[in-house]
Amino acid sequence: MTDRPKTPTLDRVTVPADLKSLTDADLRHLADELRAETISAVSVTGGHLGAGLGVVELTVALHAVFDAPRDKIIWDVGHQCYPHKILTGRRDRIRTLRQKSGLSGFTKRSESPYDPFGAAHSSTSISAALGFAVARDLGGDAGDAIAVIGDGAMSAGMAYEALNNAGHLKKRLFVVLNDNEMSIAPPVGAMSAYLSRLYAGAPFQELKAAAKGAVSLLPPPFQEGARRAKEMLKGMTVGGTMFEELGFSYVGPIDGHDMDQLLGVLRTVHDRATGPVLIHVLTRKGKGFAPAERSPDKGHATGKFDPVTGEQKKAASNAPSYTKVFARSLIAEAERDDKIVAVTAAMPDGTGLNLFAERFPRRCFDVGIAEQHAVTFSAGLAAGGMKPFCALYSTFLQRGYDQVVHDVAIQRLPVRFAIDRAGLVGADGATHAGAFDVAYLSNLPGIVVMAAADEAELVHMVATAAAIDDRPSAFRYPRGEGVGVDMPERGQPLEIGKGRVISEGGRVAILSFGTRLAEVLKAREALAQRGLAPTVADARFAKPLDRDLILQLAAHHEALITIEEGAIGGFGSQVAQLLAEEGVFDHGLKFRSMVLPDTFIDQSSPEDMYATAGMNAPQIEAKVLDVLGVTRIGEKRA
Amino acid sequence: MTDRPKTPTLDRVTVPADLKSLTDADLRHLADELRAETISAVSVTGGHLGAGLGVVELTVALHAVFDAPRDKIIWDVGHQCYPHKILTGRRDRIRTLRQKSGLSGFTKRSESPYDPFGAAHSSTSISAALGFAVARDLGGDAGDAIAVIGDGAMSAGMAYEALNNAGHLKKRLFVVLNDNEMSIAPPVGAMSAYLSRLYAGAPFQELKAAAKGAVSLLPPPFQEGARRAKEMLKGMTVGGTMFEELGFSYVGPIDGHDMDQLLGVLRTVHDRATGPVLIHVLTRKGKGFAPAERSPDKGHATGKFDPVTGEQKKAASNAPSYTKVFARSLIAEAERDDKIVAVTAAMPDGTGLNLFAERFPRRCFDVGIAEQHAVTFSAGLAAGGMKPFCALYSTFLQRGYDQVVHDVAIQRLPVRFAIDRAGLVGADGATHAGAFDVAYLSNLPGIVVMAAADEAELVHMVATAAAIDDRPSAFRYPRGEGVGVDMPERGQPLEIGKGRVISEGGRVAILSFGTRLAEVLKAREALAQRGLAPTVADARFAKPLDRDLILQLAAHHEALITIEEGAIGGFGSQVAQLLAEEGVFDHGLKFRSMVLPDTFIDQSSPEDMYATAGMNAPQIEAKVLDVLGVTRIGEKRA
Repeated sequence: MTDRPKTPTLDRVTVPADLKSLTDADLRHLADELRAETISAVSVTGGHLGAGLGVVELTVALHAVFDAPRDKIIWDVGHQCYPHKILTGRRDRIRTLRQKSGLSGFTKRSESPYDPFGAAHSSTSISAALGFAVARDLGGDAGDAIAVIGDGAMSAGMAYEALNNAGHLKKRLFVVLNDNEMSIAPPVGAMSAYLSRLYAGAPFQELKAAAKGAVSLLPPPFQEGARRAKEMLKGMTVGGTMFEELGFSYVGPIDGHDMDQLLGVLRTVHDRATGPVLIHVLTRKGKGFAPAERSPDKGHATGKFDPVTGEQKKAASNAPSYTKVFARSLIAEAERDDKIVAVTAAMPDGTGLNLFAERFPRRCFDVGIAEQHAVTFSAGLAAGGMKPFCALYSTFLQRGYDQVVHDVAIQRLPVRFAIDRAGLVGADGATHAGAFDVAYLSNLPGIVVMAAADEAELVHMVATAAAIDDRPSAFRYPRGEGVGVDMPERGQPLEIGKGRVISEGGRVAILSFGTRLAEVLKAREALAQRGLAPTVADARFAKPLDRDLILQLAAHHEALITIEEGAIGGFGSQVAQLLAEEGVFDHGLKFRSMVLPDTFIDQSSPEDMYATAGMNAPQIEAKVLDVLGVTRIGEKRA
Repeated sequence: MTDRPKTPTLDRVTVPADLKSLTDADLRHLADELRAETISAVSVTGGHLGAGLGVVELTVALHAVFDAPRDKIIWDVGHQCYPHKILTGRRDRIRTLRQKSGLSGFTKRSESPYDPFGAAHSSTSISAALGFAVARDLGGDAGDAIAVIGDGAMSAGMAYEALNNAGHLKKRLFVVLNDNEMSIAPPVGAMSAYLSRLYAGAPFQELKAAAKGAVSLLPPPFQEGARRAKEMLKGMTVGGTMFEELGFSYVGPIDGHDMDQLLGVLRTVHDRATGPVLIHVLTRKGKGFAPAERSPDKGHATGKFDPVTGEQKKAASNAPSYTKVFARSLIAEAERDDKIVAVTAAMPDGTGLNLFAERFPRRCFDVGIAEQHAVTFSAGLAAGGMKPFCALYSTFLQRGYDQVVHDVAIQRLPVRFAIDRAGLVGADGATHAGAFDVAYLSNLPGIVVMAAADEAELVHMVATAAAIDDRPSAFRYPRGEGVGVDMPERGQPLEIGKGRVISEGGRVAILSFGTRLAEVLKAREALAQRGLAPTVADARFAKPLDRDLILQLAAHHEALITIEEGAIGGFGSQVAQLLAEEGVFDHGLKFRSMVLPDTFIDQSSPEDMYATAGMNAPQIEAKVLDVLGVTRIGEKRA
């Protein structure tokens, strides 16, 4: 058990209403204690530490000035919400963060009334807050709406769409821009450079509030600087900050670790705002915890650690991660082919493209949190004669789905989608599950869809995708380490649309798509001991299907079971359609398709989540027995 | 046959290279003739007239200054490309626009090398152009990349994402902002207001080019005005146009119908630009054709018309359009429930919400071309206690897919998706097909997915969605007119997850989801004459499935055929999964799932497209006969 920090002021707080009786001096103490408690908790659980530490003062100030849950504080992405959870009735469970049956690592409506709008994907908060603000003015729930959004999240188009709409509707609405120059990776893009310029020339004491009316939103000590800023803009047709041009009052930049500034500005805008206000707050990710401050990218998501030294307690792993295997394989292909380029949307580390960028800095593009653009930019690269690999998490590719359909598939452009975090992902929970990509890609005409059964297969699929130059392709692989198979010297392109039989067996055939293969093989072992060893095959391709293999398996087995780490509508549905059209069901086939269940599965270990999903070895074994057992063999096959 | 206009200059042009030998005076004549030819052609074919007329001079100027197809001119959306098609070797087919086997109404890579990147959905051009620019600099295809994008399209997040990335990468790249204050509907949002301010105070002669270096991009007559603009900004930390803040040189605004200005500015930026340049061009939609100028919204997409009077030749219709039925039904529900609000993404007319807005102006929200925001804004409205109907075309909902998953489905918020243009849509072709929504929605846990079989069903489904207050719901309906059924006095909520049997029959059951029901009933008539009348049922719900109905149909028929206006992975796959899990296939069932084929289907009439898809009455009849015929009944059922 880690020593708990001393927290006399925090101990007086159960819900945000308790802050109303605290003095400003108390609130400063509260922030210090809240920081210590956050570090202590995350040292036990692991999680997103740096983001939360950066907003400790902001969290206290928001809850001191606003009145949650009547007022809706919406944390964009939500990984900075641990201090908020501590202040909103969840301190007693804070050391269950990201654990099975514990608190979510993100905000979550079902968890607390103080989480009015859950998150996990970036850049949704302004849209949601505007929804609350409009609802309020139409007789819905009362209260203010406050979106707290990071500078990295501002690179996403949907944040811009929301600002654009909010500036037009002119409702009272607060957007706190938490500018720490660090989303997951250092932010990229012109917007980021612009934000830097915004405060480069404007020290904290010279708050800018140039738009009409915004000066009155400032506490008196700041009004002079603002008045001067306004003067500078006088007489211009256009000018002011980009936010003002989009219809917001702009206040800032202010020091997000100076409680007096925060309280002063928030109290004033709270009392005076009539329209949308953007409050530009500068913070430091990892603030107050030296190991995180020194290395803010590492502070993004951390394992369990020593709260004094910051040293992480990480289990050693034998097999390389799929992410690293992908990165190394792509580098190897790119060594041989100078047309290969790589695109990531703000996830260079998560996708392994940081390694690619080290080797080929000119051929790697981090476009920011901008999946729509990432996909169409890749399409443009392909149309221009390059071989783009667009590396995204499965769950984030959802953001670029229309672009996959409209710009890639319809034009049959050879964009290669490297889909990381396919299937269930563990501590990040339901919001990050890569559950739908097989379904939403496999029904697109002309695309090739692959899933790697192990890390060696991934090497070959990278080579396969590199070789596919006449149409789009996608290959998916899970979070985490491989299974420890021997690795090939180099990737060899696979024959398109051909699976492989892993092991011949008897009455049942199991056709696996992706990394459930290891569990299938475990189930096979158990079944073999009953004399019921099934045939096991690896489909490799959900599209095009290996028709011959599937029809052969159906013809020579009593039962055919497909399994995939995805929701209904994907590989199993493709197989079912083939079997139906070929008339295989006409005369009877025990066909089952094991897919993710029709629920969103909360965080736990991936293994545990797959147990919940019913897709681990014992459950595969049970499925085989069930298929054989429920069938009255004598009646049917006689 | 309409009289063709006299076009002596245009007659000398077959490909853009022919423009190089023309004088500026010739180019002015060419523009006039090109306008006349465009009007003449569209009077025969129908189509997007206003957009093309607005860019006639711009089209000529771009082709005169740049060198297509080496230089890539990318028309955003593409509906303004008819003049471009006339100049790029397609004049001989221009009167086949949007017809079967004719020219596409949009740009299309497979149609011409002068269409380097096809479009139809909005706001993709900057991403694509940046891809070309980056590819060029890495040894891919040579040439400049020019995106031509409307002001309406600038409300989309992906345009912002692309600007943000382009400003960061600093590649030579041209973005022509075609500012006509009119996308399909008048543009909304703060960005639009900002663009108006940009030119409100700056008459054409005072071109702005305030950023460093941009003055040198201007032709000499404009440099003085620009120099003055720059002076105004001097000494400021930030300032200039939003585009400059995002890293672009900004030139404009210029008169897009003044060939001298256009040629002067384009020649200069062509010769001098080293980084990204935004050229702000003011145009008038429908320019030069009085009926379109007077009513630019009507000029967006027109039927065939009289080229002199502008009078449209439209066939009278007996049944109301689904769009109108939706709008009227929603208004009726909203009369009874003041919590109902409506959201559209720049399609008030297309979705019928213009009617809703007339009745309830405060309860209707056009958020601009911003589907991501539209969905999450709706989620926020729902979380705030309202009952939002988010009305989008099926194909555009793809833009908000992640938001449907992450913000609506995972949070189980009661957003109602009214999905117009479901299925094949006719002249707009493959890019606008509503093919995938059933698949990508039905696999989301907790959602209700409906399809209306006719316009009366749509009335009930609007009422059903209004009544579903504990989870998300969606209902889909096609483009075009209903089938002419009697309309109910008012909508009655349907029982969730219950279908209906339309007609009892014999050996085969056909379970329809959506408006193929009319074709199924026609097929039934034909089959009845052979004594093979099938049972016909309307599923109404793809999720939750009517398990009892489906299992009953399977139990009491030799064959079960599902049919839906969607791609694989949707309704039929849900049914197949149920049948598999229930062991129905174990003993044999002739199951077939009729879905859209695995191809993108080019424009034609919807009926013709469904013939191509194999989903009209004769093909349904053939399917039934095939299922019965190929089965050796004696062998199986004996």
